[in-house]
Amino acid sequence: MNKLLITGFSGFVASHFIEYLYKEKLQYDVCGIDINEPTHDYGQYSDFLDIDFKKADMMDIDRVHDILTEFQPDYILHLAAFSSVAYSWKHPSESFMNNCNIFLNLVSVVRDVCPNCRILSVGSSEEYGNVPHENLPIRENQRKEPLSPYAVARVSQEMLSKVYVDAYGMDIVLTRSFNHIGPRQDERFVVPSFIRRILDIKKSGRIEGEIETGDLTIVRDFVDVRDVVKAYHLLLTSGKKGEVYNICSGKGITLQKIVDMIADEAGVRVVTRTNPEFVRPSDNMEIVGSAYKLESELGWKREYKFDRTIRDMVAYME
Amino acid sequence: MNKLLITGFSGFVASHFIEYLYKEKLQYDVCGIDINEPTHDYGQYSDFLDIDFKKADMMDIDRVHDILTEFQPDYILHLAAFSSVAYSWKHPSESFMNNCNIFLNLVSVVRDVCPNCRILSVGSSEEYGNVPHENLPIRENQRKEPLSPYAVARVSQEMLSKVYVDAYGMDIVLTRSFNHIGPRQDERFVVPSFIRRILDIKKSGRIEGEIETGDLTIVRDFVDVRDVVKAYHLLLTSGKKGEVYNICSGKGITLQKIVDMIADEAGVRVVTRTNPEFVRPSDNMEIVGSAYKLESELGWKREYKFDRTIRDMVAYME
Repeated sequence: MNKLLITGFSGFVASHFIEYLYKEKLQYDVCGIDINEPTHDYGQYSDFLDIDFKKADMMDIDRVHDILTEFQPDYILHLAAFSSVAYSWKHPSESFMNNCNIFLNLVSVVRDVCPNCRILSVGSSEEYGNVPHENLPIRENQRKEPLSPYAVARVSQEMLSKVYVDAYGMDIVLTRSFNHIGPRQDERFVVPSFIRRILDIKKSGRIEGEIETGDLTIVRDFVDVRDVVKAYHLLLTSGKKGEVYNICSGKGITLQKIVDMIADEAGVRVVTRTNPEFVRPSDNMEIVGSAYKLESELGWKREYKFDRTIRDMVAYME
Repeated sequence: MNKLLITGFSGFVASHFIEYLYKEKLQYDVCGIDINEPTHDYGQYSDFLDIDFKKADMMDIDRVHDILTEFQPDYILHLAAFSSVAYSWKHPSESFMNNCNIFLNLVSVVRDVCPNCRILSVGSSEEYGNVPHENLPIRENQRKEPLSPYAVARVSQEMLSKVYVDAYGMDIVLTRSFNHIGPRQDERFVVPSFIRRILDIKKSGRIEGEIETGDLTIVRDFVDVRDVVKAYHLLLTSGKKGEVYNICSGKGITLQKIVDMIADEAGVRVVTRTNPEFVRPSDNMEIVGSAYKLESELGWKREYKFDRTIRDMVAYME
């Protein structure tokens, strides 16, 4: 049986990836690592999937070395990251280390221990920066102009991947994943944070309430995490070495529109007020991607429409 | 009097920068920081320059914060770096941290403590990667395709600089410095290492000897450190915020030719043998830069021709 290592195992993307394997009856011997214990109940998959969890700080290269030496993975889904743009503005150095340096530790160890292992390196649509409207939807050959410390870290990870592919022939496939959302996402992220606060209005029995937000005019391309993990599995098994693939819905939506949809779903009226503290020093106004490469080369198809995703998230958090 | 902070103060570039200020009678209140004590004798400049040294590991952001709060610099010449490409292949994560993360610590602290301070961020010609022969000499708008972990770290530092200039209006000027050489350079670097080994042949009384080398066919653009520090001072005082400037000689030379020149200077015959261990996993074959921007915008002119530099280096090491 193929062996699959998942880093960032306690995050919400990993839980959806495992759920996908389980539902599709894709059998793997799985080892998950994370700095925190998972809160998701992985026991529910034990009749079909063999899952082992190991607590590890990936900044500790010796620990990573020990785990990989013992497990000898065929595939690595590298999800571990500090993926908050806002956090990267506040703690740039820590954010940088927990993106670039853990990635460097991982590839160095793989090179030593299991050089034929395939790695999926997850990047971000933030790498593109402010793309002129006429260049939307964004294709993979768009020039990258990162606007935040987080975005720079992701571009760096991508450049490092290319260095290791070219210099050592390592087997790394890359993504630029656009904003993904879905049930179980941490409430510090924008959509679940809207939902939580709007549900709080509902729970308090009011029919109207106010929430503070950042800039609601920005446009993002949100893709359901369940579609994202399907793409990750496709890329792990069939992606082209050294190539980078957008994972996105192809649709842009303003944050204001999302607030409105959630308010409708919850059945309350929501007034928004901009808090300048939530507005970022520098931000991309409009991000919409093209998944043409992923669709045409690998046959990926998006299944979860945006309103379905919002409904599922509200239902999960209610 | 203007206050100038120099990081990487114990390195050979800093010693030449101070020598330049001294010779040109440019008066500054200088604070040097480094993880190691300087070995260069800075006492010789004390009749004119006020120099204070503070030992500091720039990974320790609190220490950096304390020093900048007390000193309140007007200018920062940021030389601290792990600038060996070879080392970055062996210790990628450590190399990365000692480039990107110390830079991030520095800019975060400057933003807090002395936001109007001008920073010179030193980058490298390695950022360009393999440039097609027809695009030589390399201009600043050349696409960057870094080929080593070190080169990626330098590109990242540059991207981070742009992020901080755009987001917070910070005053950062950038360089892409080509290989610089000169007296006092550490013998781990290529030219001084050739000189040391060729002088050893001479000292042993032989008229011929063998040295082991990496690939001697690669072409590099070597610029005298004394011309580099002159450019650094120009850029600190007159460079344009957010702009990047090549610092180079405009001439390409093979490493083989350098070996031959040193052998001539030392008066011995040298046979070279390639040791595959010294050949890098991936390398740029030919790097030659254009300093047109620095020359035309700021009036920089190179003074030290290559043969003069080699003569001075051999004399210093003999």
